[in-house]
Amino acid sequence: MLLDQDPAHAFMPYPAVEPAHAGGGPLAGLTFAVKDLFDVAGYPTSAGSPVVLALSGIKPRHAEAVRLALDAGGRFVGKTVSDELAYSLNGRNIHFGTPRNGAAPDRIPGGSSSGSASAVSNGLCDVALGTDTGGSVRAPASHCGLYGLRPTHGRISLDGCARLAPGFDTVGFFARTGAHFLRAGQAWLGRDAAPLPASPRLLRAAEAFALADPGAQPALAEAQARIERRLGPAGDASLGPVALEDLHWAFRYLQADEAWREHRDFLLRYGPPLEPAVAQRFAWGRDLDPAQVENARKVQADWRRRLAGLLGGDGVLLLPTMPASAPRLDEQGDGLESYRYRAVHLLCLAGLAGFPQATLPLARHDGAPLGISLIGPPGSDLSLVELAAAIAPADPSAA
Amino acid sequence: MLLDQDPAHAFMPYPAVEPAHAGGGPLAGLTFAVKDLFDVAGYPTSAGSPVVLALSGIKPRHAEAVRLALDAGGRFVGKTVSDELAYSLNGRNIHFGTPRNGAAPDRIPGGSSSGSASAVSNGLCDVALGTDTGGSVRAPASHCGLYGLRPTHGRISLDGCARLAPGFDTVGFFARTGAHFLRAGQAWLGRDAAPLPASPRLLRAAEAFALADPGAQPALAEAQARIERRLGPAGDASLGPVALEDLHWAFRYLQADEAWREHRDFLLRYGPPLEPAVAQRFAWGRDLDPAQVENARKVQADWRRRLAGLLGGDGVLLLPTMPASAPRLDEQGDGLESYRYRAVHLLCLAGLAGFPQATLPLARHDGAPLGISLIGPPGSDLSLVELAAAIAPADPSAA
Repeated sequence: MLLDQDPAHAFMPYPAVEPAHAGGGPLAGLTFAVKDLFDVAGYPTSAGSPVVLALSGIKPRHAEAVRLALDAGGRFVGKTVSDELAYSLNGRNIHFGTPRNGAAPDRIPGGSSSGSASAVSNGLCDVALGTDTGGSVRAPASHCGLYGLRPTHGRISLDGCARLAPGFDTVGFFARTGAHFLRAGQAWLGRDAAPLPASPRLLRAAEAFALADPGAQPALAEAQARIERRLGPAGDASLGPVALEDLHWAFRYLQADEAWREHRDFLLRYGPPLEPAVAQRFAWGRDLDPAQVENARKVQADWRRRLAGLLGGDGVLLLPTMPASAPRLDEQGDGLESYRYRAVHLLCLAGLAGFPQATLPLARHDGAPLGISLIGPPGSDLSLVELAAAIAPADPSAA
Repeated sequence: MLLDQDPAHAFMPYPAVEPAHAGGGPLAGLTFAVKDLFDVAGYPTSAGSPVVLALSGIKPRHAEAVRLALDAGGRFVGKTVSDELAYSLNGRNIHFGTPRNGAAPDRIPGGSSSGSASAVSNGLCDVALGTDTGGSVRAPASHCGLYGLRPTHGRISLDGCARLAPGFDTVGFFARTGAHFLRAGQAWLGRDAAPLPASPRLLRAAEAFALADPGAQPALAEAQARIERRLGPAGDASLGPVALEDLHWAFRYLQADEAWREHRDFLLRYGPPLEPAVAQRFAWGRDLDPAQVENARKVQADWRRRLAGLLGGDGVLLLPTMPASAPRLDEQGDGLESYRYRAVHLLCLAGLAGFPQATLPLARHDGAPLGISLIGPPGSDLSLVELAAAIAPADPSAA
């Protein structure tokens, strides 16, 4: 990495190679970091796995999202730690360590884009690239008090980026301020194919709010009020007829099925010793009943239609990003699995549909940040980022 | 690595770069592997640690021991898995896996030169480089049914090799047959400064034999008889006045003290998540009482004088390499620590003194190999290897 110090253990400690960047553009004067799933010429790519790192060799070319950032004038400062094979929401890596949550140092940072969220939240860079398959940008953004975008599926190229489950993989990003979030959006998104109107319809997902911790409700209500001051009062949206519980299972089946197919050859050939929870997820994907997977696809298609109908071209869905602020660093096994179970109920909504979701750091709960999110129609990504930037509190450090 | 297949998981899966080798020499026609502590130009070096691997970059030069093998006509086939930072005798690496013991697939291979012993014992190469600080060649050689040499301290250059505890670190090697062991000795040792006579005095370390499992005694006695057929009846050697227990502690203090000093900056700066037993050893080295370390140095100096007196220029000490055959793969925590404790009583004798030790795969116990060893005076390394080759059973596959 290119920094003198990394007190947050956010970065992979690769020998520094600094790629050239454009002199101007939306990221001019800003620094950026890159989750170690993206190739950067002159570096290996680990995907959070020591065995993938050994296999990697030095990459000759930048991933497309890295090239976009350099062309937008951003200065690359390093590659960041990822959860192993990006298949976790926790932000702990038994091989490379746990990056520090800059907003709540006694909490897990969230993952799998843990190092990117850590680097931005600790002020070690301005913006950062992550990936979000099942929540890997949104969860750490919520935990670390950052703006984060999971874009429309396919919006930012995955070229040169390691995959987890291709049907759900997206390239996303983090920023500490609304102003930086907007510049990141301009760099990585370009123009919207389907921009939102200036004041979109706000729809409140009551079933999603009901999943958040009771203690978090007052702060979430305040965050909602701040958004309503911009967009007007939220209407109620019913997500049914399919229950969140079923949507959540559909997402998990499909993600696990794809993740197993994507990694099968690697896992069988090299037998890498995985973090136990990650190993269990792959084994579960291996052993899934094809009928369950087939049914999950139907649930997915129904949900996509349902959400498209709710949002039309002018609606945004309001929901808590995560059910609570980040678990403490000493939280183990069952506690984390139960937290993950609840979190996926919220995270699956945009993921299953392939719709964009922006998370805003507008709430706090139990002394740590909690994000609130807007899901927009496909292709409205930059509009969501612009909305988030317009809603963001003024920040004296924002450029 | 340069092999098509590695069913033993012995090798680090680096992209293949084949260095040139001489057309003739003692290793002509033989293949060799290299523990991933040695630099090979075109490869990174991990020392069994994902964080060291990330820091490594691609090495521009061969380690001196690698250069010797290439100059001796050996063909390099790959870098092998090491225990984490080479600080274990087990041969399990939580980041890169457990190489298969080719002689006893249900047993641990032993470490830290686990991948090298695995590669040779599975027939994936002919000879292999390892390092031995506290037993990391001798233990896996014994467990995998191989010939192995821990040389006189300083005999083979450590240039381009990662360190564990420099006062004890040595470069050693493995072979499957006596004939290959001899050719490896010719390649890596050159001529002896202090060769043994053709028929050295054989001294039996009764206190060391007493530490071996009762069930292993008949096989060890047979192995002794085979050696005596070559060298004549063994005389009795008393190791005292210092008890093996005290020698063992002296070794552990000194090794832990040096290992902590060697890795202190790395551990404090990067906070790598270590295998728990390895982390404990470093923490123990950090917290040692300097008076204990000072006393251990006196014990070491006394033992070196004692052993030099016993062996003179013409004696070799006979002892079991390990207290028993390899623990089973499912052996955990306390069982392995207790095995390590007993093993270090035997392994510390050559290590503390800096004298060379050759282990020969002449015994079996409980259905798996067990080595028997000869310790010679400093500088008698090639003589020991020649003795081992002369004692070795005929092997039809030996070149």
